[in-house]
Amino acid sequence: MPTYTAPVKDMQFVIHEVLKASEQDIPGYDELDRDFTAAILDEAGKISSEVIAPLNVVGDQEGVTLENGVVRTPKGFKDAFDQLREGGWTGLDCDPEYGGQGMPYILATATGEMFSAANMAFMMYPGLTHGAYSAIHAHGSDEQKQTYLPKMVSCEWTGTMNLTEPHCGTDLGLMRTKAEPQDDGTYKITGQKIFISAGDHDMSDNVIHLVLAKIPGGPDGIKGVSLFIVPKFIVKDDNTPGERNSLSVGKIEEKMGIHGNATCVMNYDGATGYLLGEEHKGMRAMFTMMNEARMGVGMQGLSQAAVAYENALAYAKDRLQGRAITGAENPDGPADPLIVHPDIRRSLMDQKSFVEGARAFGMWGATLIDRAHRKGDKQAEGLISLMTPVIKGFFTDEGYDMTVLAQQVYGGHGYIEEWGMSQFTRDARIAMIYEGANGVQALDLVGRKLASDGGKPAMAFFEEIKTFIKENSDDEDLKAGFLDPLKTASKQLQEAAMFFMQNGMKNPNEALSGSYDFMHLFGHVCLGYMWARMAVASKAALAAGADDRDFYEAKIATGRYYMARRLPACAMHVARITSGADPVMALDAANF
Amino acid sequence: MPTYTAPVKDMQFVIHEVLKASEQDIPGYDELDRDFTAAILDEAGKISSEVIAPLNVVGDQEGVTLENGVVRTPKGFKDAFDQLREGGWTGLDCDPEYGGQGMPYILATATGEMFSAANMAFMMYPGLTHGAYSAIHAHGSDEQKQTYLPKMVSCEWTGTMNLTEPHCGTDLGLMRTKAEPQDDGTYKITGQKIFISAGDHDMSDNVIHLVLAKIPGGPDGIKGVSLFIVPKFIVKDDNTPGERNSLSVGKIEEKMGIHGNATCVMNYDGATGYLLGEEHKGMRAMFTMMNEARMGVGMQGLSQAAVAYENALAYAKDRLQGRAITGAENPDGPADPLIVHPDIRRSLMDQKSFVEGARAFGMWGATLIDRAHRKGDKQAEGLISLMTPVIKGFFTDEGYDMTVLAQQVYGGHGYIEEWGMSQFTRDARIAMIYEGANGVQALDLVGRKLASDGGKPAMAFFEEIKTFIKENSDDEDLKAGFLDPLKTASKQLQEAAMFFMQNGMKNPNEALSGSYDFMHLFGHVCLGYMWARMAVASKAALAAGADDRDFYEAKIATGRYYMARRLPACAMHVARITSGADPVMALDAANF
Repeated sequence: MPTYTAPVKDMQFVIHEVLKASEQDIPGYDELDRDFTAAILDEAGKISSEVIAPLNVVGDQEGVTLENGVVRTPKGFKDAFDQLREGGWTGLDCDPEYGGQGMPYILATATGEMFSAANMAFMMYPGLTHGAYSAIHAHGSDEQKQTYLPKMVSCEWTGTMNLTEPHCGTDLGLMRTKAEPQDDGTYKITGQKIFISAGDHDMSDNVIHLVLAKIPGGPDGIKGVSLFIVPKFIVKDDNTPGERNSLSVGKIEEKMGIHGNATCVMNYDGATGYLLGEEHKGMRAMFTMMNEARMGVGMQGLSQAAVAYENALAYAKDRLQGRAITGAENPDGPADPLIVHPDIRRSLMDQKSFVEGARAFGMWGATLIDRAHRKGDKQAEGLISLMTPVIKGFFTDEGYDMTVLAQQVYGGHGYIEEWGMSQFTRDARIAMIYEGANGVQALDLVGRKLASDGGKPAMAFFEEIKTFIKENSDDEDLKAGFLDPLKTASKQLQEAAMFFMQNGMKNPNEALSGSYDFMHLFGHVCLGYMWARMAVASKAALAAGADDRDFYEAKIATGRYYMARRLPACAMHVARITSGADPVMALDAANF
Repeated sequence: MPTYTAPVKDMQFVIHEVLKASEQDIPGYDELDRDFTAAILDEAGKISSEVIAPLNVVGDQEGVTLENGVVRTPKGFKDAFDQLREGGWTGLDCDPEYGGQGMPYILATATGEMFSAANMAFMMYPGLTHGAYSAIHAHGSDEQKQTYLPKMVSCEWTGTMNLTEPHCGTDLGLMRTKAEPQDDGTYKITGQKIFISAGDHDMSDNVIHLVLAKIPGGPDGIKGVSLFIVPKFIVKDDNTPGERNSLSVGKIEEKMGIHGNATCVMNYDGATGYLLGEEHKGMRAMFTMMNEARMGVGMQGLSQAAVAYENALAYAKDRLQGRAITGAENPDGPADPLIVHPDIRRSLMDQKSFVEGARAFGMWGATLIDRAHRKGDKQAEGLISLMTPVIKGFFTDEGYDMTVLAQQVYGGHGYIEEWGMSQFTRDARIAMIYEGANGVQALDLVGRKLASDGGKPAMAFFEEIKTFIKENSDDEDLKAGFLDPLKTASKQLQEAAMFFMQNGMKNPNEALSGSYDFMHLFGHVCLGYMWARMAVASKAALAAGADDRDFYEAKIATGRYYMARRLPACAMHVARITSGADPVMALDAANF
């Protein structure tokens, strides 16, 4: 059975030595000294390993059941949820006005990776709640905030997002769910929503659904969509759950993975709903949730790669099979451990270099979010807006591939459920799909974010890399192993962006045919940049005589691997992109 | 629910226009005229679509059960198996002396792709039988052949391969199963074997296990391994199943996929076994099965990609979502079909160009096998021996990735089991693992096959490509779109091989650190070569005024896609390979 040990040391390295968080001029960051973050991370790691992770396989095997309208979660889930609530983890970065702990998002990102690595399906219950919290926090009336937020911060009540309908997922303009205005200012919501994660369950006193619906007579398409708060139990004046609303779970979907989460078909039969934000501006409110959710889903991709890698590594050190080609390394044993074999190492290094690189990049992204939210920094907001589809799409694609690599290390044992490696792959698969399938992320990146604000965020990023390279070029070893490859990759990214600019205006297919490759190219440059920064930090620590030389030397070696073995993907992506639209679009649909 | 329509037209194109089978000087190929192959392929297609494919989801959902020692297959499996037997499909390419139809392997390859696409888990029952048939055919005594082969050709009795034990998969030298010689010339087999596909079931009168075991006192390690025939029921003198042998199914594994196949733990408790071939030469006999099985597993990878693509394509044409960025293409409908979107096309073209390229390459490989077996052509034997790990490793890795792409086209519907797309991914996953995990294929390719016979097979392949390019270079359009990229890719492959030669002697890690990339690089060159040949054939057909211009133009367009968008992966693989062993091996195992 897989186990999970949280990467506290690695996170501390990123927070304090790479990002130098406590030196950053972001309100609240001055408190982030080593002891403080260690206390938080250690405690989150402990609950992840001891409370949440042991329920991962349980959730996979038991799944969720629907009987007589009641949704039951797997054994142990409710107790674990209670412990999460009691520890204050559900409101770690929430507004203190509503009972949150008000901590920076960087800590929520780090602990979120741990929790999700320990049990992705379980963590979706508080995860969706947090998204709904954010939407109400940003768009709700004072009364709505007072009514819902304190209970959602504590997860006494949980939340959901209701977007998809059977005939429309990405194209929400086709939505059919109706919201009919009532005399008392409420709306009657009628329609069917599908794929509603954490749609119902037995772990909270109420479920607060955020539902997209159309008010009859409003604008056509996506511009006529509004967002509604539709509680499972209508909240009474004393702020307790009252009458059951007219909504029900139609069925629970059988899925490839995340069996522990209740993916519900939700039926609204004239359910009472309350407008959240303005009429017909539902998408704007929903995007508040979605951007946060997309970052969170990217971190899910990383988290599954991280836990799968951790277990594959342990197996590769433990399992004796074959002999090192250069001579036995465990001559007294019947065979050498798997890790002596170059191809097993190739796989482990692919995993390790992705996981650690993505972890650093995710936390770097979190500092941008903190900078934007806590300081109102528009440049940071633009940059994280640009990076959100990269984090969502690249982390989940790569994260999934890494779970497949980790599974492969186990050979046949990776395929049977007994060893638990299949679950990481099956669970990770959804992250490429939900919150906007990765193709939609690529479209968002190339069709919207890249050129937004006149392309300033992208330029700022290129400039940041350029400056970083310049500032560190004195170190010849760093230059050869890290800065030169980063420079090449960064130029390739710019070349691709230039190709879109020059050709996409005349024919947008020229840009969109390369959008997916661009997302991956961008991701590699981001991780390359992070690895170069981690190398700088590690060299500094070594030069300062750090005790734990092995740790820093391993960082540098892992970074070298990424630069030498992963960044060459950039040239492939550029070649695919610059081959243009013709290979993609030439074939008539009828002739496929 | 997914459906399956066999690609008869595409296979006919490959057999007759690309490979020009009936013109090849291979015994039996003169009979392969268009009408004959059409009759076979049509009939196999029909049984695939109508009989086998409808049981695919059934097998996935019902799985296989073990109760009181009896293994039960899913509803409908036995009837379908009877139909397969009655049609003579199980012995299509088997020796007529034992009741087979004696047809060329190229036809078994084509029909095998169909059957496996329709229902991979189901087809493993006859598939494993065929492997066991081949081993007995090649290494059995006359009596053994007379006893077992006729019943195995007809699949009245099925077969298995027993290699893996709990503590050893790849490293079979660690094997513990014992075979103790008895006075009557038989052996008592004792031990536990795991992951035994089709290990037991209720669809045949007997199961003929081929079991690797060690005769006490023999050489240590892999050199002391012998192969035994261990029937479930000991065959009586009248050639009917008699007494139950001392073997039993310990359990059926829960797996990620191929639920319809019984993956058994087999316990041998002093079971009666008969030596197959010579004492201590078990691996040689087993390799007869393994080479065939590896080719077959490669085709499984392709088959799952093919059926997944077929369904994804249908969905992309049917599902209305969003509008083409260049203007509505279905203005009277609520939205355009998915296939108008460039990124959906990118995905479909990746799938299509792999599936059709791999299909051609697989059948090209089958002609080599026919040439080797039917003509004793040593050069063909060397070449297919070289290509076997490429077909196994590249087809299954790529095939799996294609099922993931196909699943992605469905968005959320791809993740729920209701639509059946998850099954293709879950089933395809095993093909990367069994019959030698793909890392082992890469090791076989670089560590053994590449340099075998002084490197002649590899040189012959490079020479074949060179000659092909030379012969066709007059066509400027062909040259630019196909031959130049093929030339580049072929040179990159040679560059990588040269790197191994120059560095691998001093330090074998230099070669083995790049083995996996080399396998993929090789695969791309092979498919690039096939696409160039298909383009030549298509251009010839168009020049000759063929009726179905759309078909040939689609071939050329798909080939162009492969050359423009997939072959650039070769440069990435070369860069990874030539970065050498250091990035892979530098990190001490303790410091991971």
